[in-house]
Formats: sequence, C-alpha cells, structure tokens
Amino acid sequence: MLDRSATEAGSIEALMAAIGQRARRAARSLATAPTEAKNAALEAMADSILQARDTILSENRADIERAKESGMAASFIDRLTLDEARLGAIADGIRAVAALPDPVGATIAAWERPNGLRIERVRTPLGVVGVIYESRPNVTADAGALCLKSGNAVILRGGSDSARSSAAIHAALVAGLVHAGLPEDAIQIVPSTDRAAVGEMLKGLGGAIDVIVPRGGRSLVARVQDEARVPVFAHLEGLCHVYVDGAADLEMAIDVVVNSKMRRTGICGAAETLLVDRAAANTHLLPILEALRTAGCEIRATDEVRQRYPTAEPAGEEDFDTEYLDAIISVALVDGVDGAIAHIERHSSHHTEAVVTANEAVAAAFFAGVDSAILLHNASTQFADGGEFGMGAEIGIATGKMHARGPVGVEQLTSFNYRVRGTGQTRP
Amino acid sequence: MLDRSATEAGSIEALMAAIGQRARRAARSLATAPTEAKNAALEAMADSILQARDTILSENRADIERAKESGMAASFIDRLTLDEARLGAIADGIRAVAALPDPVGATIAAWERPNGLRIERVRTPLGVVGVIYESRPNVTADAGALCLKSGNAVILRGGSDSARSSAAIHAALVAGLVHAGLPEDAIQIVPSTDRAAVGEMLKGLGGAIDVIVPRGGRSLVARVQDEARVPVFAHLEGLCHVYVDGAADLEMAIDVVVNSKMRRTGICGAAETLLVDRAAANTHLLPILEALRTAGCEIRATDEVRQRYPTAEPAGEEDFDTEYLDAIISVALVDGVDGAIAHIERHSSHHTEAVVTANEAVAAAFFAGVDSAILLHNASTQFADGGEFGMGAEIGIATGKMHARGPVGVEQLTSFNYRVRGTGQTRP
Repeated sequence: MLDRSATEAGSIEALMAAIGQRARRAARSLATAPTEAKNAALEAMADSILQARDTILSENRADIERAKESGMAASFIDRLTLDEARLGAIADGIRAVAALPDPVGATIAAWERPNGLRIERVRTPLGVVGVIYESRPNVTADAGALCLKSGNAVILRGGSDSARSSAAIHAALVAGLVHAGLPEDAIQIVPSTDRAAVGEMLKGLGGAIDVIVPRGGRSLVARVQDEARVPVFAHLEGLCHVYVDGAADLEMAIDVVVNSKMRRTGICGAAETLLVDRAAANTHLLPILEALRTAGCEIRATDEVRQRYPTAEPAGEEDFDTEYLDAIISVALVDGVDGAIAHIERHSSHHTEAVVTANEAVAAAFFAGVDSAILLHNASTQFADGGEFGMGAEIGIATGKMHARGPVGVEQLTSFNYRVRGTGQTRP
Repeated sequence: MLDRSATEAGSIEALMAAIGQRARRAARSLATAPTEAKNAALEAMADSILQARDTILSENRADIERAKESGMAASFIDRLTLDEARLGAIADGIRAVAALPDPVGATIAAWERPNGLRIERVRTPLGVVGVIYESRPNVTADAGALCLKSGNAVILRGGSDSARSSAAIHAALVAGLVHAGLPEDAIQIVPSTDRAAVGEMLKGLGGAIDVIVPRGGRSLVARVQDEARVPVFAHLEGLCHVYVDGAADLEMAIDVVVNSKMRRTGICGAAETLLVDRAAANTHLLPILEALRTAGCEIRATDEVRQRYPTAEPAGEEDFDTEYLDAIISVALVDGVDGAIAHIERHSSHHTEAVVTANEAVAAAFFAGVDSAILLHNASTQFADGGEFGMGAEIGIATGKMHARGPVGVEQLTSFNYRVRGTGQTRP
C-alpha cells in the first residue's frame, strides 16, 4: 500500500498535503452539488459494491490471511471479516443515507430586523472531514456515504489490517462518484501505511482539514488528544450506567438492565455499572443480579452488595471506572437518585445513562442532573445508536459537548452560516 | 493582583486547579438554576455596577495612570477607559441579557420512534467557559452575564492593564450573584498576572474547562492555537470583503462600501478589501473610490485600478491579506461574481463578506459559493454584530465552523443532549 513515488519524492508530508489540496478542491464543488447528484452517486455506489463483491471479498480474504498469520485475536478478525451478508448491509446502509433529507442549504432559522434586514441561518457543509479508523472496512463506506450526503469531502485513513478490503470498497465508491459526475477526490483513501500520515492529518494538512473523526481504541484516542491541532469529534469510552430506583417496576428493571449489559457487550452503549437505590435493596437487587448471572454476566460489587449477594466478586474502586466491553458489570447501592447522580458525576464518560423508575419526579431529577450525551428513562442503554434514533446512520457517537453530541449523522456533519438580505442598509 | 499565598504555596498550577474545581462545582449548581434566579442576579449585577460607579471609575483611573506611564498608545488607552456613559452601557448590556429567553432546557427537536421511544434534543449549558482577553474591562461584565444566562460558570482572565477595573466590576457581579442566591464561583476572576495562568487555562485546568474564548490580538491567537488542548471559539481576523457587481445600484454601492470601511475602522466587521466587477470599472469604480477618499480613506490598489485612479497607492499582494483595522482599503478588479468568489476564497478569513448587486442570480451565486460566517447582500459588513443580529449581546464572533459560527451569544454558549422516554423498551 505504500506510495513509493511519494516516499521517493521525499515525504509523507508532500503526499498528505497534496491529498489535502485535492480534498479542498472537491469540497468546493460538493458544497453546491445538487441533492439529486449526491443521491445518484450513493445509489451507484451501493450498486458498485454489490457488483464488485467477488473482488472485495477476495481482497478481504487476503487481509484476513495476513491477520491470521500475525496471530490476531478472533474478535479482531471478526471485525475485519466481510461476507455476502455484511456487504449487503453496507450497500443497504449507503442507500439509507441516500434516502435521508439533504441537510445542506436548509434554513435553520429566519427573522427580520427592525431596520428591514432579513437574516437566515443556513446549513452548510463542514468542508473536509478526516476519518482515522482501525479494522472495520465498513467504516470506509459508511463515512464515505455520510460525508458525501452532507456535502463534505472525506479523507479516509483506515488501519493497515484492512487496507486491501478498504481499497476495494473505495474503488466501488469512486465508481459511484464518477457515474454521477461528482469529483473522484470527494472520497480519498490515504495510500500509505506510514504512521506519519496520521500525524499529518492531526495537524490539519495545512488548513485543509476541518474536523477529524477518530474511530479506534485507547492508543488512537490518546494520540489524537495529544497531537490534534484541528477540531475533533471526541468519541471516548462508553462507561454507561443504569440506575434502578426504589420506584422502579421490577420486571422492567430486570429487562432493561439485562438488555443494557448483555445484548451486545462490545458496543459503546453497553452498560458497565448498575446502581441500585438502597431503598430497593431488599426487593430489586437480588432478582436483577440473578437475571444477569443467568445471562452469563460476572458481577463485581461493593461489600454492601456482596453481603446480600455473596457470589459476586469484590469490586475495587477502579472497577467503577472501567469500560469492560465484556460480560462483566460493576454494582453498587446508592442513596436514591441524588446518590446515583453523584456516582455518575464521578465515574461517567458522559456517553449514555439510564434510569428505571415509575416516579416522574425522579426521572426529571435524573434528566436535569446528569450531564451525558444520551439519557434514557425506562429504556435500554443499547438504544444509543444513530440508527435507533432514526438518523439513518452515524459516523460515531460524540461524547464531547461542542458541535455535536451523541450520534454524529448527516446533519451533525454540517455547519451553518448567516445570509443577510438588505436593500442598501448601512449601520448608524 | 498577584495572589501571594498561592505563589508562596508553590504554584500557579495549584491556584488555577482550585479555580477550575470551584468553577465545576458552581457549574453543576447553575445547570439547574431557575431562570428567575439568573435574571434576578443579572438585574442585581446591573444595579451594583451603577451603585459602585465611584469605586469602579477610581480603579479605572489607576489603570489608566499606569498605562500612560508605560507609554501605551492613545487607541489602547481608549479601549481601557471607562466613564459614566460606558458604565451605563455595560449595565444596559447586562439587563439586555436578562431580557433574553433562557436557552437552557429548551427542546430543540422532538420525535417518536416506531418502537414507541420518545426522543427530545434539549439544550444544556456547556459547563465551564474560560475567557482570555486583553484591555477591555467591559468584557468582564459582558462575558460574565452571557455565561450566567446560559447556565455556565465562567473563569475570566483579563489583561494586566485593566486588572483593577476588572476586579472592581467583578466585585459588583459577585454582589449580584449573592443577592440572587447563586454561587459566587459562577464568575471567577484569575487573581494572577502570571503568564503561566493562561497556559494552565489553555490546558483545560485538568478537565474543568469546556471551552476557551480568546479575545485579543495576534499573539494571543497564536498562543491559543499552539497551546490549547480544549475546544476554542476561534475568533480570528475580520478580513472582510465588499464585492460591487456590474449590476449594482451605484448610490447603494457607494453607501455600503463607505459604511463598511469607515463607520468604525477598528472593528472586526470593517471591510478591508473592495472588489469591483471589471464590467463596472467604467461606471462604479471612480465614484466609489472618490467617496472613500473624501471620507478619509487611503486607497491601495492593483496597477489596473491605478491606471484609472492614479492617486491610489500601489497594493502589494500582502495587502490583500492584511486586516488594516484602519482607514486603508485594498482595491482590485475581478471578473464578475466568479472572480470575486475566487479572490475571497484565497484571501478571506471567513468572517464577513458583502455583495452589492440588483441581480438575484449573482447574489445567489455569491451566497452559495463563499464560505464565510456572515454573508450580506446589499447591506454593510458593519452589521456583523450580535446586537445587530438581534441576539442581545455576544461574547465574540467565531470564525471557525464547529459549534458556533458568527456571533456567539447566549444560545451559542450551550450544548444539547438527548432525553429518551420509554416504557421498558429493550433493543432486539
């Protein structure tokens, strides 16, 4: 995958700067691309992916072969693997994005001033989005589609492990762009596995990049926080909590807690901590813990909880700060909703938290007092997902508070500006 | 102003960390403060400022004395100076913020999913805002009021030149907070003139700061870009353009251009470059340049323009990248709106640009093709102001594309989160 000519020419810097310039040029053209052209490109991309299935799957097998030879773990290889069904899902995802309303050019607000100036706040693309990701070849297609629909050019830098799969998918995406008469550079893949390429993107490619979306593990997140000189959609951990209140319906609490933890343990919306109201310790705690254990979950709990449920492992303080991404949950008793809020304030990653209660005042206090991107009342934390929210697709879930919070979909990949119409007004 | 106990204790770091923690505690309480309490505090602040006028003006005279002794320029001293009228304007500004709708808790969007989940996107405070500014003591009051209204705690770090004035204003603000039962730490002033205090803020005070607002000149902007590890509302230069199209009404063009440049030359919304359609060179160029010259403006122009208007100074290429903040304007001819767009793309700071034309298609092309925060058709660039937009007041004009673009008022100092209400739904 290494671009020999660039390295012979002397620098990753030059390669990346050129990619940035091409992306900027493409972005200028995409900013005014008609919705019909973008949708035609997306439909053509979905078709191309299916037509190129043999090539894509063959390239994917080569990536898997290399990963196996390197001794990668089974879960890693699973994230890497494509098959007919997953390709079909990728194509469906692209078509779902095509079906979304086009946010670009939409008027968010409009008003008239006493002096007759008519002001509109209008959605615009962000410009150039840089996506840095690991393993999952589907991100190539998802991110490409979302950015195109929102009028942005995208620069994709996937992991080396999925390089051949991503390149094959990228070729199908470009075929779709060409079919609709849109610039090929709307979606670029970084053809270098040199680590320095990521560093260049984090510096912004000389002003070419408007925002970075990092999709990866702790070391990527740490590198981004350390080196990024451009805005980033922070996608940190999902250390999600479920608080079961004294006024919770027991059956509902069992269903919500078990689903929140066990439906899929490896996603960011999986619950990692269960907080039970001390007032419900005698009624709700044991049935919920038994249901979790029956579902295959390991319980790690405070001494107080273990006195009631001795089969639990002891939880150290660090367990309440750990995103397990596994069938393990930390459990503690708290003093009502205020105690839950205080615990969450100390340990949360501000992603997603749920409260189970029939008491509206408790739910309202929880909603007002907890500062996370997604708050749920009487529903599973596993709903923390752009598709579940009806946003069609997402490029990730942002945990930061600037610009976008929660699922980052097409609408969140836009900015806005003000368009002021006058009749010659001057300011006194 | 130096906090001796902190330096004796050993570090600015510790002082700043403590300020950050106090701000975070105050922010938690402000997030749920009733609108009435915030408005009562604001009204009390405005009253306190007027009641404390003698003290504030006396402290201001001390700052001015020191500035004069240091040989500061007249314009600098003017930015520093308070008088009865300016204090009155500060108090009025605070009352204007009190009169604004409270954005916190407002439902931005609401929808229901097929599975019955009801989702709302709701405005929340950002949390803790850090403002780093120079000279202008009014920023102490403006920023304090805007942050309070939007439910944020604020940490203010003004320049040492206005330290005594700012401290006196701050005391009045705190009196208002106390009167309404709100935490004193909602508005904190950094009591140290040590440069390191700014560095600590830019690093985020250990996670306490959510966003930085820098209000200052190039060296502050450069330092922020270099050292900031938290989100920043980029407030870069205002290298604003006015494009006079061939289809522009001549009288309107003269009025708009002269007002854009000369109403107040030192503000970010002042026009720095005039672009005239080559098709209007024989009809519009000279009358506009004459009007500018009569108003006291120095003209710097390309050779092409100077051939028609020899009294103009020659413009070097760097003149088109210069924010003069003075009675000087750069002038060039361009090939219609496409030429104007291309020039602006190369030189703009993405702040504010205006087009004068009677041709709707030209205006539409300008609006679609220029990527700046504020675009005006047939109106002066000097309207680039939160007050003129009807936003009450602003903490600055953001030129970046993330989160807020253009005037940053109360609404822009908020984030949002999702509140999902269910009846026990679990995800399949």
